[in-house]
Amino acid sequence: RINPDRLWDSLMEMAKIGPGIAGGNNRQTLTDADNEARHLFRRWCEAAGLEMGVDRMGTMFMTRAGTDPDALPVYIGSHLDTQPTGGKFDGVLGVLAGLEIVRSLNDLNIATRHPIVIANWTNEEGARFAPAMLASGVFAGVLDLDYAYGRTDSEGRRFGDELARIGWVGEEDVGARKMHAYFEYHIEQGPILEAENRQIGVVTHGQGLWWLEFTLTGKEAHTGSTPMPMRVNAGLAMARIFEMVQTTAMENQPGAVGGVGQVAFFPNSRNVLPGKVVFTVDIRSPDQTKLNGMRTRIEAQAAKIAEELGVGCAVEVVGHFDPVTFAPELVERVRASAEKLGYSHMDIISGAGHDACWAAKIAPATMIMCPCVDGLSHNEAEDISKEWAMAGANVLLHAVIETAEI
Amino acid sequence: RINPDRLWDSLMEMAKIGPGIAGGNNRQTLTDADNEARHLFRRWCEAAGLEMGVDRMGTMFMTRAGTDPDALPVYIGSHLDTQPTGGKFDGVLGVLAGLEIVRSLNDLNIATRHPIVIANWTNEEGARFAPAMLASGVFAGVLDLDYAYGRTDSEGRRFGDELARIGWVGEEDVGARKMHAYFEYHIEQGPILEAENRQIGVVTHGQGLWWLEFTLTGKEAHTGSTPMPMRVNAGLAMARIFEMVQTTAMENQPGAVGGVGQVAFFPNSRNVLPGKVVFTVDIRSPDQTKLNGMRTRIEAQAAKIAEELGVGCAVEVVGHFDPVTFAPELVERVRASAEKLGYSHMDIISGAGHDACWAAKIAPATMIMCPCVDGLSHNEAEDISKEWAMAGANVLLHAVIETAEI
Ligand SMILES: NC(=O)NCCC(=O)O
Ligand SMILES: NC(=O)NCCC(=O)O
Repeated sequence: RINPDRLWDSLMEMAKIGPGIAGGNNRQTLTDADNEARHLFRRWCEAAGLEMGVDRMGTMFMTRAGTDPDALPVYIGSHLDTQPTGGKFDGVLGVLAGLEIVRSLNDLNIATRHPIVIANWTNEEGARFAPAMLASGVFAGVLDLDYAYGRTDSEGRRFGDELARIGWVGEEDVGARKMHAYFEYHIEQGPILEAENRQIGVVTHGQGLWWLEFTLTGKEAHTGSTPMPMRVNAGLAMARIFEMVQTTAMENQPGAVGGVGQVAFFPNSRNVLPGKVVFTVDIRSPDQTKLNGMRTRIEAQAAKIAEELGVGCAVEVVGHFDPVTFAPELVERVRASAEKLGYSHMDIISGAGHDACWAAKIAPATMIMCPCVDGLSHNEAEDISKEWAMAGANVLLHAVIETAEI
Repeated sequence: RINPDRLWDSLMEMAKIGPGIAGGNNRQTLTDADNEARHLFRRWCEAAGLEMGVDRMGTMFMTRAGTDPDALPVYIGSHLDTQPTGGKFDGVLGVLAGLEIVRSLNDLNIATRHPIVIANWTNEEGARFAPAMLASGVFAGVLDLDYAYGRTDSEGRRFGDELARIGWVGEEDVGARKMHAYFEYHIEQGPILEAENRQIGVVTHGQGLWWLEFTLTGKEAHTGSTPMPMRVNAGLAMARIFEMVQTTAMENQPGAVGGVGQVAFFPNSRNVLPGKVVFTVDIRSPDQTKLNGMRTRIEAQAAKIAEELGVGCAVEVVGHFDPVTFAPELVERVRASAEKLGYSHMDIISGAGHDACWAAKIAPATMIMCPCVDGLSHNEAEDISKEWAMAGANVLLHAVIETAEI
């Protein structure tokens, strides 16, 4: 069993880096705070005897050697970056639980045949640079390194430049590593486990996603002296598209979501009808047909809404992954570990995207989830209990030991 | 008659300060560019023999002495500040036409009984600091100096601090000056004069306005893992309020407008449902009953929309003026001047707010308008012809001479 106090103390220590404004964290990827977090994690790992490798996307791979020089490593990964107003556990729990597994194995003097690698993936959140899960996407060969380097934040800074600025351009080719298996432990970020009163979510699938960035082009004009019939109102088109996205998601219940988190008006002045409005629609479903059907409908309807108002409408995909089915043998191993440890559990579909979704493209992969209070995440008030954190870490420990073989 | 080439050259010279990105200007109030524009205007005025006074709101008053020491001055005012993506003429035409009047009177060796004062009012646009027409509002005694000093821009900088930073806190008490009459010459910023093929708009009234700043409070949550029924979606509430504002304005046709130019999502991340959305509704009408009826309806409906979604809804008035009736004797003088000069003209209601609307509270005031291409303003593509600029300036010259008395 892992040491819950040590895990919790590490979580609380990490949360001091990049504090938020309401008890959570603002430790967005490739900021100075991200750099500080990486150094702390590195020190902890090296103290636990792990050896660091870093790839050209800045992902950190911390290796505990195995006894068989030919055996591929078992990976435990997640991320230390956060949303601008993020919680203390989203991603961080997975990385630090990985470290706790190693610390516990060290305490117990357990060697494994397969090496164990803890991965801290760069830019999982996708808050500063879209898309999310950027480094694992390049690792899995789904996205190009050049594409990733060229992504820009809201102030036009390039991912590649910012990675260099904080000093984490590693030497390893991205995706050169081979994996025996990949595990990711994460808070649920939704309400189901808490509502069903289960300690462990056995993650069988992950939802697919489209991020559709709309650019609506209206005519900048005076809000006072421009008569209603003369307006080419990109803001109004946006409002109608919001409502249509909501309707589309509701028509696809159950098993679909849709919403908008990011909006920019140009020039964004109270007495100027916007000449340009940019926003990103986020739609998800575990059902590929539903997911793509929603996309098709939303793009067609948006074009119609815009046309009726004389507004220009362009769409760019800034994020996408298909629904994922996790490796049945690993899923079963997680389920059996929870069972053996006496934890209440249920099968669950991940509502969020995770690096595990990309890892699943190149290796047997799965996830373990623990509940979070009120299902709240991407919110500084995100919370879990020490007991919840512990249960999942114990399941992870057992599943990893079985997979890495003593 | 004024010198149209000199007026045009001054307009083009001023437009070099604070250039925009598409041929217009970004010379927002209290920026370094605003400071540069003020100094250029000051130099031009001093070369024309005018004497400067500056009040504590930073408004510049440039005086041409009259022959009667007891006669109150005739004011010609407008503004040199622009929208973030503004035109070269909005406001600037009125100020530099005032200067051209003085230059022409100098050329012709015409003395007037009343002094003539050209005013450059601070923060007319209200783009950087709400409300618009801030300095003239304080001058007219409608707004407090402390309130004005405490207004903040989107980065939290205070008006008072920025005024001091650019070095334009004058010594005069705001509103201490008394006016014999107030004239403002402005581009129409709407499509009517061009459509009706008239050179001169004789401005009889101005629309009233409410700026209602809504703060919607939702629950920050993950866009992927938060089920649709659990969402407290402030963005969706915003979209519905947009549509309702549009409907309200359409139900009040003709003679009303409503729209939204400024929106901010918090934290504004693609995969976070916004916890807070702030935006400003701009509604206007020349009819006081309609104007206030729209406000009442919009506030009530917005509260209902928000409540249905469980979203918190607070409203703050960040700008307001009642519909204005300009001084009939001055209006008639403008009409007669246009007639005498052989310009086609029509009576018109100002769709935008102007410093003249506040001046009308404390003195006989009116406005003169010229057409602008496609009715476009608050857009870098804003345009007028030299002939249009000239016609209004000639009407201004004649109306001012009659009022200031030779
Ligand atoms: N787990 C998580 O919040 N990942 C960010 C990517 C997403 O939006 O699902
Ligand atoms: N003339 C002008 O654009 N003034 C700004 C205030 C308003 O929005 O009407």
